[in-house]
Amino acid sequence: MAKEIRTIGVMTSGGDAPGMNAAIRAVARACAYYNVKCIGFYRGYQGMIEGDYTVMNARSVRNIISRGGTILKSARSVDFKTPEGRKKAADQLKEIGVEAMVLIGGDGTFRGGQIFSEEYDIPVIGVPGTIDNDIAGTNYTIGYDTALNTVISAIDKIRDTASSHNRLFFVEVMGRDAGFIALNSGVGAGAEEILIPEEDLGLDRLLESLKRSKRSGKSSSIVVVSEGDKTGKNVYELADYVTENLPDYEVRVTVLGHMQRGGSPSCFDRTLASRLCVKAVELLLDGEKNVMVGIINNEITATSFDDGLREGHEINKELLRISDILST
Amino acid sequence: MAKEIRTIGVMTSGGDAPGMNAAIRAVARACAYYNVKCIGFYRGYQGMIEGDYTVMNARSVRNIISRGGTILKSARSVDFKTPEGRKKAADQLKEIGVEAMVLIGGDGTFRGGQIFSEEYDIPVIGVPGTIDNDIAGTNYTIGYDTALNTVISAIDKIRDTASSHNRLFFVEVMGRDAGFIALNSGVGAGAEEILIPEEDLGLDRLLESLKRSKRSGKSSSIVVVSEGDKTGKNVYELADYVTENLPDYEVRVTVLGHMQRGGSPSCFDRTLASRLCVKAVELLLDGEKNVMVGIINNEITATSFDDGLREGHEINKELLRISDILST
Amino acid sequence: MAKEIRTIGVMTSGGDAPGMNAAIRAVARACAYYNVKCIGFYRGYQGMIEGDYTVMNARSVRNIISRGGTILKSARSVDFKTPEGRKKAADQLKEIGVEAMVLIGGDGTFRGGQIFSEEYDIPVIGVPGTIDNDIAGTNYTIGYDTALNTVISAIDKIRDTASSHNRLFFVEVMGRDAGFIALNSGVGAGAEEILIPEEDLGLDRLLESLKRSKRSGKSSSIVVVSEGDKTGKNVYELADYVTENLPDYEVRVTVLGHMQRGGSPSCFDRTLASRLCVKAVELLLDGEKNVMVGIINNEITATSFDDGLREGHEINKELLRISDILST
Amino acid sequence: MAKEIRTIGVMTSGGDAPGMNAAIRAVARACAYYNVKCIGFYRGYQGMIEGDYTVMNARSVRNIISRGGTILKSARSVDFKTPEGRKKAADQLKEIGVEAMVLIGGDGTFRGGQIFSEEYDIPVIGVPGTIDNDIAGTNYTIGYDTALNTVISAIDKIRDTASSHNRLFFVEVMGRDAGFIALNSGVGAGAEEILIPEEDLGLDRLLESLKRSKRSGKSSSIVVVSEGDKTGKNVYELADYVTENLPDYEVRVTVLGHMQRGGSPSCFDRTLASRLCVKAVELLLDGEKNVMVGIINNEITATSFDDGLREGHEINKELLRISDILST
Repeated sequence: MAKEIRTIGVMTSGGDAPGMNAAIRAVARACAYYNVKCIGFYRGYQGMIEGDYTVMNARSVRNIISRGGTILKSARSVDFKTPEGRKKAADQLKEIGVEAMVLIGGDGTFRGGQIFSEEYDIPVIGVPGTIDNDIAGTNYTIGYDTALNTVISAIDKIRDTASSHNRLFFVEVMGRDAGFIALNSGVGAGAEEILIPEEDLGLDRLLESLKRSKRSGKSSSIVVVSEGDKTGKNVYELADYVTENLPDYEVRVTVLGHMQRGGSPSCFDRTLASRLCVKAVELLLDGEKNVMVGIINNEITATSFDDGLREGHEINKELLRISDILST
Repeated sequence: MAKEIRTIGVMTSGGDAPGMNAAIRAVARACAYYNVKCIGFYRGYQGMIEGDYTVMNARSVRNIISRGGTILKSARSVDFKTPEGRKKAADQLKEIGVEAMVLIGGDGTFRGGQIFSEEYDIPVIGVPGTIDNDIAGTNYTIGYDTALNTVISAIDKIRDTASSHNRLFFVEVMGRDAGFIALNSGVGAGAEEILIPEEDLGLDRLLESLKRSKRSGKSSSIVVVSEGDKTGKNVYELADYVTENLPDYEVRVTVLGHMQRGGSPSCFDRTLASRLCVKAVELLLDGEKNVMVGIINNEITATSFDDGLREGHEINKELLRISDILST
Repeated sequence: MAKEIRTIGVMTSGGDAPGMNAAIRAVARACAYYNVKCIGFYRGYQGMIEGDYTVMNARSVRNIISRGGTILKSARSVDFKTPEGRKKAADQLKEIGVEAMVLIGGDGTFRGGQIFSEEYDIPVIGVPGTIDNDIAGTNYTIGYDTALNTVISAIDKIRDTASSHNRLFFVEVMGRDAGFIALNSGVGAGAEEILIPEEDLGLDRLLESLKRSKRSGKSSSIVVVSEGDKTGKNVYELADYVTENLPDYEVRVTVLGHMQRGGSPSCFDRTLASRLCVKAVELLLDGEKNVMVGIINNEITATSFDDGLREGHEINKELLRISDILST
Repeated sequence: MAKEIRTIGVMTSGGDAPGMNAAIRAVARACAYYNVKCIGFYRGYQGMIEGDYTVMNARSVRNIISRGGTILKSARSVDFKTPEGRKKAADQLKEIGVEAMVLIGGDGTFRGGQIFSEEYDIPVIGVPGTIDNDIAGTNYTIGYDTALNTVISAIDKIRDTASSHNRLFFVEVMGRDAGFIALNSGVGAGAEEILIPEEDLGLDRLLESLKRSKRSGKSSSIVVVSEGDKTGKNVYELADYVTENLPDYEVRVTVLGHMQRGGSPSCFDRTLASRLCVKAVELLLDGEKNVMVGIINNEITATSFDDGLREGHEINKELLRISDILST
C-alpha cells in the first residue's frame, strides 16, 4: 500500500525556526531519491487551502540548507480550524494529486494535522520545527539549538557593556509557556539568575540573590527572563521593582525579540532537520501515518501525535541547580 | 619640554564602545615602545578622582584587542563636573606622577577634558570612542563600524522571520541625537524606510511609502528607526499608528538596545583604534595638547577640541536618496 | 572519607577545545560553592610536575565562559609518561595539599590520569574535552559542537565562492582517527561527498559520484575530507587525482586547520561543560574516583576509565546514508 | 543622448567578492527606479559572449543584499581576450538590445571592458569588486572590508589555540600582488609580524623579531603572510626555516584560502556597493562612459580607466610602523 504514494506534499507552519529550510531541502531531496514527486505548499495550511504551491525537485532546494527562515513561508491559518477550511485543503490535495503530507511546525501544527488526517484519511507525518523545544515527542526541536546560540551571542555582547558599566541587565528571551530557551541560554551565558514559567523563584529570593551577588564583589549581573515567567510582572516592571528595592544597581532591559527566530542554522539543527525529514519521507513510503518524528536519546523515533503532544516536554530542572552553583 | 613626559595616563569614559580595548592596548604598547610609564584609570574620570588605577605594561594588554567592552571600565562621572571633583583628580595625577592623559570617549568626555586641562595645565589628547559617530573632528569614531555590523546582522535575522511571515518590522537602533547608525545600517540591511533625527519624513509619507511597497508586491518590510527620530512618536507608538492606518500589515517591534555596544570589534575599528592611539601618545610626547585625534579622508589628524566639537558631524543625506532608490 | 577532601586541582591537557574555559569555571565555582579550595595547574601534567599553578576562586573565572582556548593553557607532557615525572607530580600535589584532580582532556589525558591515580592513590575524575568526539564514555565531548559550527560556517563561505565559479572544493577537517567532525559537518554543510577514516568509499566511487553530480546539473561541489581518511591519499593528492580524471572540474583545496580548535563556545558546549564539571566535583566530594563523566542519552553519567576508553566511540554510519540521499 | 539608454546590462567577473550581490541589487533597483530595463549576464564576459542572461527587475534581487557570492556567477573568460570573442559579445548585446554595461570586478575586468568599449562604442562603467583592494581609482573595493573581518575572526580563533599551547602560527592570507589584506588584518589581529609583497622584511629580521618576542615573555605568536610575500619562500618553507633556526618554537601553518572570498558582506561593503552602483547607473544615464566609480576621501568619484588602473593602489606603510610599535 505504502508503495503507492507517488506525491508527497510539504509545508512549514506556525512560528518559523532556523533549520526549516534544511528540513524542506531534506524532504525534497528524499522525495527525489525515492522517485516521488514533491509539492511545496506556501504559508502552511493556508497554502493548502488556497492551492498555493510549487513543484519541488532536487535543484529547487539548492543552497538553502544554510539559510534562516523558510522558502515556503509560514503562517497561522484561521481557516484551517474550520471544517470548511479543511475540506478545501483536502479537495486541493486531491486535485493536485498529493497523497501524503510532511508537516513542519509545532504543537498547533500537529494538532491540526491529526484532525485533518483523521477526517480525510490522508497520511501525515509531523516534523518538530520550533525554537521553543516544547514538544514531548522529541528531545530537541529544529531551531532550538540555533536560537540558544543567538541568545548567548547577544548576551555576550550585553555582558561586555554590563561589565564596563557595572550594570544589572534583564534580558527577555522567547518562551511564553516553556522556559527551555531561558534556562539553557541562561546557563550558557553564565547568567546570575534565570526566571522561567515552570518555577516561581519569588521576587524576594530574586532580590536576595542580587544582593548576595553584589556583596560577593560582582559588579555586573545578567538576569535572563522567559516571556512567560511566573513573577506576575513583565520584564520592564521587574526592572522597576528591582530599581526601587536595590537602588545601588543601575538597571537596564533588553528584549531580544524576533531575531531569535532567524539566522543561519547551527550544524546541530541542520543535521537534525536532515535526519528527521529523511525519516518522515521513508515512514510515509512505508505506510506509516499520523505520527511525529523526533530524536530521543540520539535515536530517530516515531511517536503517535497523542503521545508526542500529550504532556509538555519537561525542562531539566537540574539546570536551575547548576545555575545556582555556578553563579556563586 | 615634551620629552620630559615620563608617565601617561589612559581611561575610557562615557558609553562604552567596541574597540576601546584595542585603543587601551595601543596606548599601553606605544608607551612601552617609547619607554614611558602607563597608568590605566578605572571608570573614567571617577577613577582619576578616586585614584583607582593600575600600572599597565605591554603584557597587561595581551589578547584584549579582540574583546568588546573595556578592561578599564567606563562611567559617567557627576563629581568631575564640579570644581572639587576636578581638583581631586588633578591632585591624584600629581601624586601618582601622571603628566598627561589620553581620554577615550565621546563629546562629553572631551569637554570635561578640555576644562580640566585648562584648569590644571595637564596635556590631554582625546580619542573618539563611541558607537554614535557624532563627532565633527573625525569621519569615524571607534566602535561605530562594529555597531553597524551588529545591527545588520540582527536585522538579517529579523528579515528571515519577516519574510517567512510577511510582516512589517520596526527596528529601533541607537542614536538619540544622530542618525548615523540608523542611516548606514538601514542602507546596509536593505530597509524599506529609515527614520532619523536629522530629517522629518512625516507620518503621511511613511504610510504612503509602506502602501507603495505593498502594492509593488513586497510582502515584508523593515523600517529602521533611530532612538531620537523626529516623528514625535516612539517606536511602539509608531507601530500602533501604522497598525491602525494600514490594517493589512502585521506589525512587530524590536528594540536592539545595548547589544549594539558590545561584541568583538571589526577589523576597521581595531586598526582605527590602533592608529589613533599610537598617534595620541606620539602627540603628547611631541608636546601637543588639548586636541582630539581623528581620521579625516584616510589621514590621522589632530583637531582642537573647539573645532572637533564645534558642530555636530553631519550625516550623509545622500544615503537617504540611495535608500529611496534601492527600496524601490 | 569523601568529606575529607578540602582541595581539588584542575588542569586542561591535550589538544585544546572550545568550552575548556567554561569547564574550568564550573570546577572553580563548584569548589567555591562547596567550600573546597581550588588549584589550577598550568599546561596540564607538565604544570603538575613543575608545580606551576594558581589558586582559583569564584572571581578568577569571571567572564571566561564565553572565551575560546584555556586560561590554564594546555600541553602534551612527555615527562608525565615516565615514572619519575609522575613521582614529581605526586610530590607537588602533596606539597600543595591537592587531594584530588579534575582532568579536562581526551583519551591520552585519561590514560595518564588512570595510571597516576593507581600509582599514588589520588582520586581523579576525567572530563572529556576535545573537538574530536572520539571517547566511548560520552555521546558528546566538550568542544565538538563548536568545532562543527566553525566548520560549517567556513564551508558556507567556501560554498559562496564555489557556486559563483562552478568549482569543486576539497575541504580537509580535523579528525585523524575519527570521522565525527567530517561526517556531521559534511551533512550540516550539505557536502556532496564525505571521506572518513571509518569507511573506505574508494576512489572509483568518488569519481563516479562526482560525475553523477555533474550530470545532474550541479555546478559546484564540496567534498569534506577527514584528516585520516582511508583513500591512501592526502587532500592535495586527492585533488590532483580528481583533476586528472575529471578534467571538467576546476578543483581547489582548503585545509581548515587549527581555527577549528578556537572560538567562543556554543551554548551546547557551555552547558555541557558546566554540567559535567559540577558533577565531577560532586563525585570527588562523594568519594568517587577514577571515572570519567559524560553525557549519555541526555543524562550525566560516570563511567570507569576502562569502559569509557575501551573501544572507540562509534560514528553514526546512518549519517553516510543520509548524506547520500541528500546530495542527490 | 544619454537619455536614450533604455537597457543596461550588468555582470560580475574575476574573483568573486562579498558584496557583489549587493552591487547587482543596486544596479537592478536603480534601473527599476529610472525605468530602465536591466539585463544580468551570467559568468561575466563569458555570458555576454554566449548570450547567457536573465531579465532583472526590482524583485529579482530581493533579499540578496546579505548574501555572499554572486547570483550572476563569475568567471575568467579566455574567449573575451580574443577579437572574435568580443565580436560575439557585441553582437549579443546588440541582439538583446543592451546599450550600456555595468562591469563589477577587478583590474582585469576593467581592462577588458575598456578595450571592448573602444572597439564597439558601447558605454561601460567599472565597479571595483574584489577582496584585494588593489585598484588605484578607489580607496576601498567592494569585498575588502568583509575579507578583513573574515581573516581576523579566523586569526582570533587561531590565537585561542596558539595561546593555549604557546605556539607560533604562520597564517597565509590572500593577496598575490598586494599586501592590503595581510597588512590591515595583521594590525587588526594583533599579529607579531606581517609579511607583504611590498616590503622585504628579510629572513634575518624575522628571526630576530621572533627571538625578541620570545625574550619579552610572549609565549605565542602569529605571523600573517601575504600569498606573494617577498621572502622567496612559501609559507610552509617559512615555517620549516623558522623551526630549524628557532627550535624553541613549536610552529604551525594555516592557509586561510577561499573562505576569504565568501560570507555575508559587512555593512561597509553593502553600503559601498549600493552607493557605487547607483552612481554607475546614473553616470550611464548622464552619458558618461569608460570610467570606473570609486570612493575617494568619502566621496563617490568617477575616474577614467587609464587613471584608475595606471599604477597600483599603494598600501599604507604607516601601518607597518604601527604594527612594529604594537607588537612590542
